[in-house]
Amino acid sequence: MNEFKIDEAGGYIQLEFAGGPARFHAIWLLDNALDETTRHPKNHQRLITILDLPPNSKITNAKWVGDNITIEFDHTTQKTYPIQFLWHNRYDKPINNNPFQTPENAILWDKTAQNIISTINYHDALHDEYKLFIWLQNLYQYGFAVMNGVPCESGQLIKVAEIFTFVRQTNYGQWFEVRADVNPTNLAYTNLGLQAHTDNPYRNPVPTMQILMALENNVAGGDSIVIDGFKIAEQLYKNNPKHYVLLSNYLAFFDYHGDAKTRLNARVPILEKNLAGQLVAVRFNNRSAAPFSDIPFDKMDAYYNAYRTFAQYIEDEQFMIKFKLEAGQLFIVDNTRVLHARTAFHGHGVRHLQGCYPDKDGFVSTYNYLREKYGNHPR
Amino acid sequence: MNEFKIDEAGGYIQLEFAGGPARFHAIWLLDNALDETTRHPKNHQRLITILDLPPNSKITNAKWVGDNITIEFDHTTQKTYPIQFLWHNRYDKPINNNPFQTPENAILWDKTAQNIISTINYHDALHDEYKLFIWLQNLYQYGFAVMNGVPCESGQLIKVAEIFTFVRQTNYGQWFEVRADVNPTNLAYTNLGLQAHTDNPYRNPVPTMQILMALENNVAGGDSIVIDGFKIAEQLYKNNPKHYVLLSNYLAFFDYHGDAKTRLNARVPILEKNLAGQLVAVRFNNRSAAPFSDIPFDKMDAYYNAYRTFAQYIEDEQFMIKFKLEAGQLFIVDNTRVLHARTAFHGHGVRHLQGCYPDKDGFVSTYNYLREKYGNHPR
Repeated sequence: MNEFKIDEAGGYIQLEFAGGPARFHAIWLLDNALDETTRHPKNHQRLITILDLPPNSKITNAKWVGDNITIEFDHTTQKTYPIQFLWHNRYDKPINNNPFQTPENAILWDKTAQNIISTINYHDALHDEYKLFIWLQNLYQYGFAVMNGVPCESGQLIKVAEIFTFVRQTNYGQWFEVRADVNPTNLAYTNLGLQAHTDNPYRNPVPTMQILMALENNVAGGDSIVIDGFKIAEQLYKNNPKHYVLLSNYLAFFDYHGDAKTRLNARVPILEKNLAGQLVAVRFNNRSAAPFSDIPFDKMDAYYNAYRTFAQYIEDEQFMIKFKLEAGQLFIVDNTRVLHARTAFHGHGVRHLQGCYPDKDGFVSTYNYLREKYGNHPR
Repeated sequence: MNEFKIDEAGGYIQLEFAGGPARFHAIWLLDNALDETTRHPKNHQRLITILDLPPNSKITNAKWVGDNITIEFDHTTQKTYPIQFLWHNRYDKPINNNPFQTPENAILWDKTAQNIISTINYHDALHDEYKLFIWLQNLYQYGFAVMNGVPCESGQLIKVAEIFTFVRQTNYGQWFEVRADVNPTNLAYTNLGLQAHTDNPYRNPVPTMQILMALENNVAGGDSIVIDGFKIAEQLYKNNPKHYVLLSNYLAFFDYHGDAKTRLNARVPILEKNLAGQLVAVRFNNRSAAPFSDIPFDKMDAYYNAYRTFAQYIEDEQFMIKFKLEAGQLFIVDNTRVLHARTAFHGHGVRHLQGCYPDKDGFVSTYNYLREKYGNHPR
């Protein structure tokens, strides 16, 4: 700390942090200045555009003042940066070339997580913000959580979602009924078992979260199953790295035209990586898979092998958490990661669930806010 | 046509179409069979999973019957496919390696499109489905359209969106007010000019469409500008292909924490390509750009040069359509493609707009439905 070295040409400055050195370019520093001429003091939005900055600014001097460094550009302009800000946002670091990566927040799980399912009571979710924070943190890490004691009223799941986010309305409505239907527009509305799947991969962007709540569930069967798609992908990568590459390098195709006026389709991969190489979404749904036609002929057989292997892991009990949703109980999944399934049901009872699609961005926003508030002060 | 050749090992069949030959694998054909044991006759969803299909099926015979071909697998199973279905979904075709591609539906435009802006009257949008179809088709191709004669009532823009899709609610509400505010949570709520931008790049997924409607607009200035982000990207690619690669190969970073409880951020590229190489989204917003930290040190200077060049093209009048929204007028943009800007305003009048984020998937679904209905029968 308290040391720096300015590049001879003034193009960048190297700072010594407790964690090691990191270099910052003049243009990056100017663009990310924090003063009131660069950022609005209240809403923090940037007031300048890149074109307001001279293209060839040089760093001409610098000075540490406590935990801040003041950097001079072109012998005229001075900007001050807290050391924490620079360390947190440093970009001069080794590139992670690991071919299998998942987002930092994700804790991967299999059936052994059955007894650590994160559960909250509806009343607590409404009235105990710290308990809500812990529950949301689990949801953020595992992509799955359960709520008990929800009033068995139609549409109540929307009120649950609106505790921490907003609900995405679709052709299925703000929420939809999941029960056996005589003339089903979707196989979910039958008593058939449903292979583990993510919902609506034919939608782009895909719904990011899903709530399923039981209003009645006294049939034989109709159990719920959840599976960590990231864990399955990891399994695929470990045992069949070429299969992982195939499912993440080509576009699959999904469509839905189950009701009279809806025509949805999306060309998207089964395993979606971002540009940093992180697996960021899993899509898997046998019912709505359309003819794959973006995979070259000479890769198609291998792709189908990869697809089959992935499906085999999905059917493997070692990855499944199984439970039966009771009336007044709901579960929520990150639909970009966690697959859900149900077993077939029959008998004289009624199985009536309602589902909806909350938005993950609002959930993460609420979680981030609560983490700032409680994260460093655990009770 | 009416010819075929079965691979010696039975792994695939080659069919002769009017447009040329195409090969199909046994597993692909079985997975994409259309009979009632494979697909639900009403909702068309697939009833089988990949694990229901034997892994090593062979094609053992085939026979054309009119415009259908019946294919025999393993001397036992027979499935029939319409020739149109197979041609439409063929995957045995040359790969498009063009480094600059946009989606097939996109017609790129610049300022010369000013006089072909697609406009519809509110009354027609409600009561003339064919005119609505034509308007939506333009919106689908150009990513931009205008509506006139909308009743000047608060929230009316939601009713417009709900003619053809659903509205995404966010922390800004189901809709939001755009007018000069004393204590703005967003610079949009001031009288400042706003550089051309796409909305909410700090949200993942990003809002896919945006409506802005004027309830009052009698200030001096406050003009609207729209720009085709795909056209700008094409310009960048043509003049500076390395810049195009930089902006599409690395994650930028955007964030928003303008109000007390909202903490949104997203690591996403400025130019987003899909796995087929198509440019599918443009994100650009100087106000919410956060410190880029996923670009390697030795690429950062070049990345900033690319970013600056892109911004220069965005400021170039040759790409801008300019207009002033009158009261009762609205425009809609594809927020994954078209940037919008406003000029600064001042004087004694009032500029009061409302905005909302309709979902593109619902719009495309409605468009696809209407295209089936009217596409082949132009009036």
